[in-house]
Amino acid sequence: MNWQDKAHLRIPGPTPIPLRIQQAMSKPMIGHRGQAASRLLQECATSLRALFGTTHTPLILTGSGTSALEAAVTNAVQPGDEAIVVVTGAFGDRFAKIVERYGIALHRLDVPWGTSCSPEQLATFVQNHPRAKAVFLTYCETSTAVLNPIAELAKAVHDHSDALVIVDGVSCLGAVPCHMDDWQVDIMVTGSQKVLMLPPGLAMVAVSERAWKRIEQQTQPRFYLDLTAYKRSMEQHSAPYTPAVSLLYGLKEALLMLEEEGWENVFARHQRLMRMTRAGLRALGLPLLTSDDDASPTVTAIDGRQTAWDTESLRKHMSEMNVTIAGGQQHLKGQIARIGHMGYCDELDVLTVLGVLEMACFKMGVPVELGTGVKAAQEVILHV
Amino acid sequence: MNWQDKAHLRIPGPTPIPLRIQQAMSKPMIGHRGQAASRLLQECATSLRALFGTTHTPLILTGSGTSALEAAVTNAVQPGDEAIVVVTGAFGDRFAKIVERYGIALHRLDVPWGTSCSPEQLATFVQNHPRAKAVFLTYCETSTAVLNPIAELAKAVHDHSDALVIVDGVSCLGAVPCHMDDWQVDIMVTGSQKVLMLPPGLAMVAVSERAWKRIEQQTQPRFYLDLTAYKRSMEQHSAPYTPAVSLLYGLKEALLMLEEEGWENVFARHQRLMRMTRAGLRALGLPLLTSDDDASPTVTAIDGRQTAWDTESLRKHMSEMNVTIAGGQQHLKGQIARIGHMGYCDELDVLTVLGVLEMACFKMGVPVELGTGVKAAQEVILHV
Repeated sequence: MNWQDKAHLRIPGPTPIPLRIQQAMSKPMIGHRGQAASRLLQECATSLRALFGTTHTPLILTGSGTSALEAAVTNAVQPGDEAIVVVTGAFGDRFAKIVERYGIALHRLDVPWGTSCSPEQLATFVQNHPRAKAVFLTYCETSTAVLNPIAELAKAVHDHSDALVIVDGVSCLGAVPCHMDDWQVDIMVTGSQKVLMLPPGLAMVAVSERAWKRIEQQTQPRFYLDLTAYKRSMEQHSAPYTPAVSLLYGLKEALLMLEEEGWENVFARHQRLMRMTRAGLRALGLPLLTSDDDASPTVTAIDGRQTAWDTESLRKHMSEMNVTIAGGQQHLKGQIARIGHMGYCDELDVLTVLGVLEMACFKMGVPVELGTGVKAAQEVILHV
Repeated sequence: MNWQDKAHLRIPGPTPIPLRIQQAMSKPMIGHRGQAASRLLQECATSLRALFGTTHTPLILTGSGTSALEAAVTNAVQPGDEAIVVVTGAFGDRFAKIVERYGIALHRLDVPWGTSCSPEQLATFVQNHPRAKAVFLTYCETSTAVLNPIAELAKAVHDHSDALVIVDGVSCLGAVPCHMDDWQVDIMVTGSQKVLMLPPGLAMVAVSERAWKRIEQQTQPRFYLDLTAYKRSMEQHSAPYTPAVSLLYGLKEALLMLEEEGWENVFARHQRLMRMTRAGLRALGLPLLTSDDDASPTVTAIDGRQTAWDTESLRKHMSEMNVTIAGGQQHLKGQIARIGHMGYCDELDVLTVLGVLEMACFKMGVPVELGTGVKAAQEVILHV
């Protein structure tokens, strides 16, 4: 039961890699300054437009998601500026840490972990901080499985301010609609190891016309993460520094797979996986951290603070049966368990996770009826 | 003659990827916070010590080589400081650009492209700039195929200054001895896509005790490239931000392959590939950009400024026969051709490159005797 090939990685990223993508990444290496690399970059950037919902060409960085979060900060605001960061969990907190590190005056809107930020709450906060040059938001807050209502939040900002709207979309872009041009989001970032089904190592950033005007005036020093360098290079279908070529091959294949499935179907699949997971957990009587309204289609959290048993023990038992789920972060460490259902994940994967979770509960002496969670998830598939 | 699988990539990085490494990188994805990832990071870091010649644990960043160059700058010096950058080509120039971008007073020691910096020259320069806090050097200057004498240059600095010695070893580490502890090099950086035979996407940084003292006092803001974050995480066998897991699997396998070959044999192989290439080009009457004393074992440049024919045309003809070599950079663009012979490259690969180069010369009407270059290279293999 512990073959590595049959391990089920159900954390909220990295996600498993499809064979098609593995094979694409195994193509012979090419020169990063040659025509083939140029075409590859161009094809990826063109396909990424639909992911972001923009007519602009997204930029591709070699780095973790955090590299793109930092790029969003240092390219958009600078010391002396004020910025609002909405913190709904550990990744909002990361934005806040970067903002503080760079000497930008931070106005931090803390929202209880497990709930989303409401447009009304943000509107008031924006009005109270009229000098803020940017508002940093998190689309899916991976640490709490919360999806923030980005379209409404962006509108709340624009109704009361000229601040740029900057969004971390790392753990949900591709699984949820994104219309950054229509929503007037100024900078949206994502990463390779989530819905895109790739290994970690690429980060993508899309930027509005309005944000480019600001970025081009920025004097805050930056080099590797200077977005203007990526923009200039991308206009020549090139990258300023040697890009992760094998991951680009993978990205092209991933985008092709998602286009073949059809973006609407990709969104619907993730909605279904979320509904299955939530129905299964509820049928087993396990408490969820987020309400239905705040739930992300990519990850679901069990609130261990409301259980008589330990979520870390649950994770350990599941891990012994070859299914890996995630724990909590920061003050929720050891308090919650998170099930990732994004990227290379389908309905049968959720049945497996629930089946194993039930057996883990059984082993722990948690009073659940075996098969109950699976049944509830099957009913979601079968519409009964 | 143009199967992609049989393409010969002979630029000075990225280099071809061995099947063993491709297979290692195709292992199922794992959680980046789990025990398996922790072990993987630890194994890579331990093996990297021999590459750098240090007892300290090297750090692994997700990024292009340039990310590590920037990390070396922003962690070691800050605005108001003075720094010396020795520029022997485009990558020394990149160090200089980063230094300037960050408002550090730059003392630039320009050396004619194609020659190395001499210890005497550097000693004088260091004495003339006694307030420099750091001296930035390039081990192999990829753009000119020059190997700088790092041990002697480091000594020249230490004899006259307390400045940190910081070295870009991206395009030669692994192919040449490196004893950074003995040589008192303070920061040494390298990348994945050169001698290590991996795709681009990882950068590695090793840091001396002396440099850590400086780095820990630095107030220059930095986040993704803050080396103290990587150090703290590495002490827990972890990475501060999601690392490029598949490339780490590849790195482990690459280091294993090089250890199996034996580091002394790896150095000897690269020396042999260099001697074969130089002997072959000389036998054909082609002018080399660097002297034997300055030659890097990883890359060799043909000086097209001394030929009646065009090196770009040579590259094009070779490319049509499925062998890719590189051109020049900056003011040497279109003026030189560079043959990479590092990483996944053996003696027969050099015979192939020379054979194709001869045919390209023939097609261009360059008066060379077919087989002459190959013969000279064969004689290097056969010791005749």
